[in-house]
Amino acid sequence: MSDGWTYVEERFDVTCAKGQEGLLTLGSGYLHVRGSFEEHLYDAPQAVTYLRKPANVTAEAFPEMKVKWGTFVPGIYGLHPLLGKEMTNLPWFLSLTPFVAGEKLDVERSAIATYRRTLDLKTATLRRELRWHTLAGAVIDVVFERFVSAARPHLCVQRLTMTSDRDVDVSLEAGIDADVRTSGYDHYTAVEFSRPAPDEIACSIRLDSGDEVHMRSWVAAAGVNWQETETDRQANLTATLRLRAGQPEVVEKRTAVTTSFDPVRQDLGTLLSCDHRYEALHAEHADIWATRWRQSDVVIEGDPEAQLRLRLGLYHLLRAHPNDSRLAIDPKAYAGDAYRGLFFWDTEIYMLPFFLYTQPERARSLLDFRINTLDGARANAASYGYAGARYPWEGDVDGVDQCPNWQYRDHEVHVTADVVYALAHYARATGDMAYLTGNAAPVLRETARYWLERVDWRPGDGYPSLLGVMGPDEYTPISSNNAYTNRLVAFALEAAAEVEPDEALKRQYREIAAGLPILRRGELVMQCEEFERYAELDFDALWPDRSRPLAAQVSQERLYRSRVLKQADVLLLMMLFEDEFSDAEVRAAWDYYLPYTSHDSSLSPGVHAIVAARLGLMEQAEAFWQQSLDIDVGNGAAEGIHIAAHGINWQIAVMGFGGLRSAMNADLLTLNPRLPANWTRLAFPVIWKGQRAWVDIRHESVAVRNDSAEPLAVVVRGQKEMIAPGDSQTFAVNV
Amino acid sequence: MSDGWTYVEERFDVTCAKGQEGLLTLGSGYLHVRGSFEEHLYDAPQAVTYLRKPANVTAEAFPEMKVKWGTFVPGIYGLHPLLGKEMTNLPWFLSLTPFVAGEKLDVERSAIATYRRTLDLKTATLRRELRWHTLAGAVIDVVFERFVSAARPHLCVQRLTMTSDRDVDVSLEAGIDADVRTSGYDHYTAVEFSRPAPDEIACSIRLDSGDEVHMRSWVAAAGVNWQETETDRQANLTATLRLRAGQPEVVEKRTAVTTSFDPVRQDLGTLLSCDHRYEALHAEHADIWATRWRQSDVVIEGDPEAQLRLRLGLYHLLRAHPNDSRLAIDPKAYAGDAYRGLFFWDTEIYMLPFFLYTQPERARSLLDFRINTLDGARANAASYGYAGARYPWEGDVDGVDQCPNWQYRDHEVHVTADVVYALAHYARATGDMAYLTGNAAPVLRETARYWLERVDWRPGDGYPSLLGVMGPDEYTPISSNNAYTNRLVAFALEAAAEVEPDEALKRQYREIAAGLPILRRGELVMQCEEFERYAELDFDALWPDRSRPLAAQVSQERLYRSRVLKQADVLLLMMLFEDEFSDAEVRAAWDYYLPYTSHDSSLSPGVHAIVAARLGLMEQAEAFWQQSLDIDVGNGAAEGIHIAAHGINWQIAVMGFGGLRSAMNADLLTLNPRLPANWTRLAFPVIWKGQRAWVDIRHESVAVRNDSAEPLAVVVRGQKEMIAPGDSQTFAVNV
Repeated sequence: MSDGWTYVEERFDVTCAKGQEGLLTLGSGYLHVRGSFEEHLYDAPQAVTYLRKPANVTAEAFPEMKVKWGTFVPGIYGLHPLLGKEMTNLPWFLSLTPFVAGEKLDVERSAIATYRRTLDLKTATLRRELRWHTLAGAVIDVVFERFVSAARPHLCVQRLTMTSDRDVDVSLEAGIDADVRTSGYDHYTAVEFSRPAPDEIACSIRLDSGDEVHMRSWVAAAGVNWQETETDRQANLTATLRLRAGQPEVVEKRTAVTTSFDPVRQDLGTLLSCDHRYEALHAEHADIWATRWRQSDVVIEGDPEAQLRLRLGLYHLLRAHPNDSRLAIDPKAYAGDAYRGLFFWDTEIYMLPFFLYTQPERARSLLDFRINTLDGARANAASYGYAGARYPWEGDVDGVDQCPNWQYRDHEVHVTADVVYALAHYARATGDMAYLTGNAAPVLRETARYWLERVDWRPGDGYPSLLGVMGPDEYTPISSNNAYTNRLVAFALEAAAEVEPDEALKRQYREIAAGLPILRRGELVMQCEEFERYAELDFDALWPDRSRPLAAQVSQERLYRSRVLKQADVLLLMMLFEDEFSDAEVRAAWDYYLPYTSHDSSLSPGVHAIVAARLGLMEQAEAFWQQSLDIDVGNGAAEGIHIAAHGINWQIAVMGFGGLRSAMNADLLTLNPRLPANWTRLAFPVIWKGQRAWVDIRHESVAVRNDSAEPLAVVVRGQKEMIAPGDSQTFAVNV
Repeated sequence: MSDGWTYVEERFDVTCAKGQEGLLTLGSGYLHVRGSFEEHLYDAPQAVTYLRKPANVTAEAFPEMKVKWGTFVPGIYGLHPLLGKEMTNLPWFLSLTPFVAGEKLDVERSAIATYRRTLDLKTATLRRELRWHTLAGAVIDVVFERFVSAARPHLCVQRLTMTSDRDVDVSLEAGIDADVRTSGYDHYTAVEFSRPAPDEIACSIRLDSGDEVHMRSWVAAAGVNWQETETDRQANLTATLRLRAGQPEVVEKRTAVTTSFDPVRQDLGTLLSCDHRYEALHAEHADIWATRWRQSDVVIEGDPEAQLRLRLGLYHLLRAHPNDSRLAIDPKAYAGDAYRGLFFWDTEIYMLPFFLYTQPERARSLLDFRINTLDGARANAASYGYAGARYPWEGDVDGVDQCPNWQYRDHEVHVTADVVYALAHYARATGDMAYLTGNAAPVLRETARYWLERVDWRPGDGYPSLLGVMGPDEYTPISSNNAYTNRLVAFALEAAAEVEPDEALKRQYREIAAGLPILRRGELVMQCEEFERYAELDFDALWPDRSRPLAAQVSQERLYRSRVLKQADVLLLMMLFEDEFSDAEVRAAWDYYLPYTSHDSSLSPGVHAIVAARLGLMEQAEAFWQQSLDIDVGNGAAEGIHIAAHGINWQIAVMGFGGLRSAMNADLLTLNPRLPANWTRLAFPVIWKGQRAWVDIRHESVAVRNDSAEPLAVVVRGQKEMIAPGDSQTFAVNV
């Protein structure tokens, strides 16, 4: 049974190797490496060139590859001829390969008696143990360990420990491989290797964007002499190590990385040359992770597997955060290049709450990214002929839209309002309302200026409309008065009116905000004007294989004229503005849209879980929670982590089941929990307007501890209490 | 003043060089060459590589190039990584360059005293005369002549005549240049040169598609010895010729081309080795053109410039026709690669009538192409998950859709019905009704089978709908119940019901045909359900520069949500089915849609001219006629000929002004002419159900001569007469 902290891979399964590689990505925010094997696999070339074309990533077929190396530094981008800027896969520095009598360690072809790989979430450490029966007769216990230091974000530390049952010579190869591609494309215009010291190898590359990356590896093993071999794109240090029967031998490899995107260029030698031993480096790293977990962990008792999977997602959120307000988190969490390292609304709507209610300073950093890229948003608006600022559907580090598919880039405009919603969410959740009148004010004003030009006043209507939009549901490409978009834009305009000094503009913003319609048929909120005029799709006939997305079995042409949702749309609106819709309205939307919803987007099940919990549909809530939790198991993470889903998994646990009301809908810390039947306990820390608290929910009670220095007002199931600093209050409620 | 047959370029203007090069394309149906100068220009490299991306061709910015060579054999395609199959630019064999004392003839940099280039439409012969004051002092009269033989379609014949005012040595260079690109892409995987004889040079290439092309040039000048120079991609024969003062010297170059697409592979040597002299080759070529003009000319008196421009378009229609039912005519008439040599609805709706009423056997060949590519249409339908056959928006020689832009490929479905309309048009115009029950029947049946699955029955509607379609107006991307599409599909289903043996299917086809709605608001036929719910576009503010397309100044995002037409849509429907709409309805559509129409498509003005003529709006008819006639002047033909516009120009002249009613709307040869005021005469041949006639229209009379062996029934302005074979009948009417 899982201890709730250790992800265990009990055996190697090549059919899931790529997924595991993504799932076991390590990272420091600055540097991220996929969980590839140090000795690699056979028949898995990484220098395969092909032309990746613009496509809907949900339905995109990535080339068959056993595994896919990935080394990413956020902010380092290459220029793709079709896709625009894309995060570039950097040289692979993990290689650390033992050979015995010419036999390379190979988990597929060698005789491997035992195998176990673990990711210790508590310390963000990857470990692999195996017993290798070499062809030469020796039986060697091999242990690989690896972490990317949270304390020294430029540094990756590896250790290899080998113990043989007899004396044997082991040859080692440790190098840097720059013969890699980014989804088939070669962005490197120059590659240079050097050998700064006998036990060091360095690599510098230049990208087609002009960006530069430098890396240097130090390899240490007792009493060996390293030889260098080098080709155009690869350099290796090789040596032979004598294993004595029963006596463990240790090889260490440390790699430091710097880039031209670094605010201050650090010296690689200095970064590498700390005196710390492996254990000391690991301890300072583990300390930081302990703090992170103290701030952000969620405890689930009664369902150890769910506990582990939830924590695995939180681990990736904590790992992927760049700690740099020039950057946000891409939808694959720097664990794959599927979304090309670009920035979507995923941050604001799906990931932000986790940070906002547990580490608000890291939430702030993500929002400051939008403020810092306002110039890009201005350029986007201008490129369409509009004034003001328009946030990108797929933004680069400058905020410029790099989305190569026009239907999303042109029409999925809600992101610009989502950003304002998130800025306001931050202000309300932290109590820092000055943020909106201060740093964030230009964003509010300039995006409102864009909406002013983007709305249409149709002849005869008497109210403004947003035409030609794609809402969150991406299977309805060009629609009119999408409810989600209209409400979010109205919110953004109201917020802008608060900070707009020009009285005429202020009036116009309020007029549009008041006028943008939310269409209804009785209690049913309509997704858009057209929805009921679409065709019915015969789901049973056209979607025989539910294990694959609907879009992989039905043409886009058909989806675009049918009543079919890729993901929650009206329901997402109702999740964000829960007080504005009655239970009856939410239920009507649930009943109407759910049968049409394919959940082809990983963002969909989680929203449904939260809405189901609100409606008391606990069976469905738990089923959607499970679906959302499982998103990256099997080969789900092959092309990277579905990080927004993990953000919403936190929301399901804490806000759906834990019942924490969003600061957008509550002034005081408010809890209306509904625990799944098999859970015995749900506990989590939360920061509410600067006050830290610990919430501990069981079926018969809800306890809240005030970890702040001021009295804390708490409302549980409508019961309001003030809790003194350091005190706990237990509410006897049936959950 | 123009003689009505000779297109004259009085001076060289480099800013229009690329347009003239397209306009002066020669061709035999089999082989087409753009009107490039034999000696080329300086600073105009033809081997520039770039990645052409999918785009709306109307708004596509082609790279700046002074000129663009083009050598095309229909049916020869390369594989582009983004665009799919594309017609490939073949090696350039026109080069024939004189040098005097190291000075290359160069119309930009040499001292050129006189210059005149003519295209003789009567004989399809290009001629250029110039007087060259060489730096060395000699004054040389240079005459280049060129034709692609209509009698020997594999053969291009060139002649260069030079006469100097003094004795001078002229060096000559004549070669084949395979260092060319197709819109920036290199499709050649192998290039081989050889020298089959001292005065011959040959080139064979292989394309990335596997297609092969072979060409061989023979160069002849009195008493010279040719030397060969060769690089990877170019081979030249060079020699020096002594010009004696006042004594003309002639150099001939003949090039024969064969390809792997030829039904029978002919020997290049045999193709070249005819004994004919230049004059004899030209005479047999001119004979064929004389026949073509006899069959297809249109005489306009009173407007010599319009006469010439109309004939220039007819020339290109006659030239571009491939005389091979494995092929049709691409939208650039094999005079440029903008539309990649693919086949659109342009053939069926815009070009077909010209052939149908003057050379019906050539119309039949174009329609047989659709029958021959039914397998491709089946594959297209299957690729979307439909039964039956779906004709491609941009088809290759196999009928497979190569359109890289999903909005057109997926949604512009009307082409499949347009094909059936054209098949029926052929049957009615020729009287060969057995065509529909014979060869064409599978097309009728299988496209109907596709429509059966493509229609939707929306809940509660009680009638079938075509949802998610793009009509002819490409600025309304995904609409419902587009009137044009619905009517054409209904027509196709009615036609299919006639030939469908299965009674149940027959009933379903008729039910759908009867049910597909044509939406109306009073007398106004609505383009689609959504049109009135789009925004008003401020044309004046957003379209300041009317010399460039609207789409170059307003984003697609905005166009797609606004009331704006790229081209005639409802009006085109009313042109095709003129009897089904009253004058009041046509007028209502005219008044409503015209202010919203950008005419960004070259297919638009001509349709408006015809509809205006019907409405008696002669001023507007003449203005649109002029706009359509002028489409290829200036730089209009830079990327190829707008051949569909020329097809419709014939329709404006003969059907709009000449008043010939389409066989789709009239059983007898019927004329309701309306001449422009400044025309004194309009005369043309026509074949009506196999009977040849000559129509001669003046303001005071309409004369019809029966050139057939049977009595001919004619209706002029409602007056019906039978005309005996060989007889003429003059109707005294005010036109």
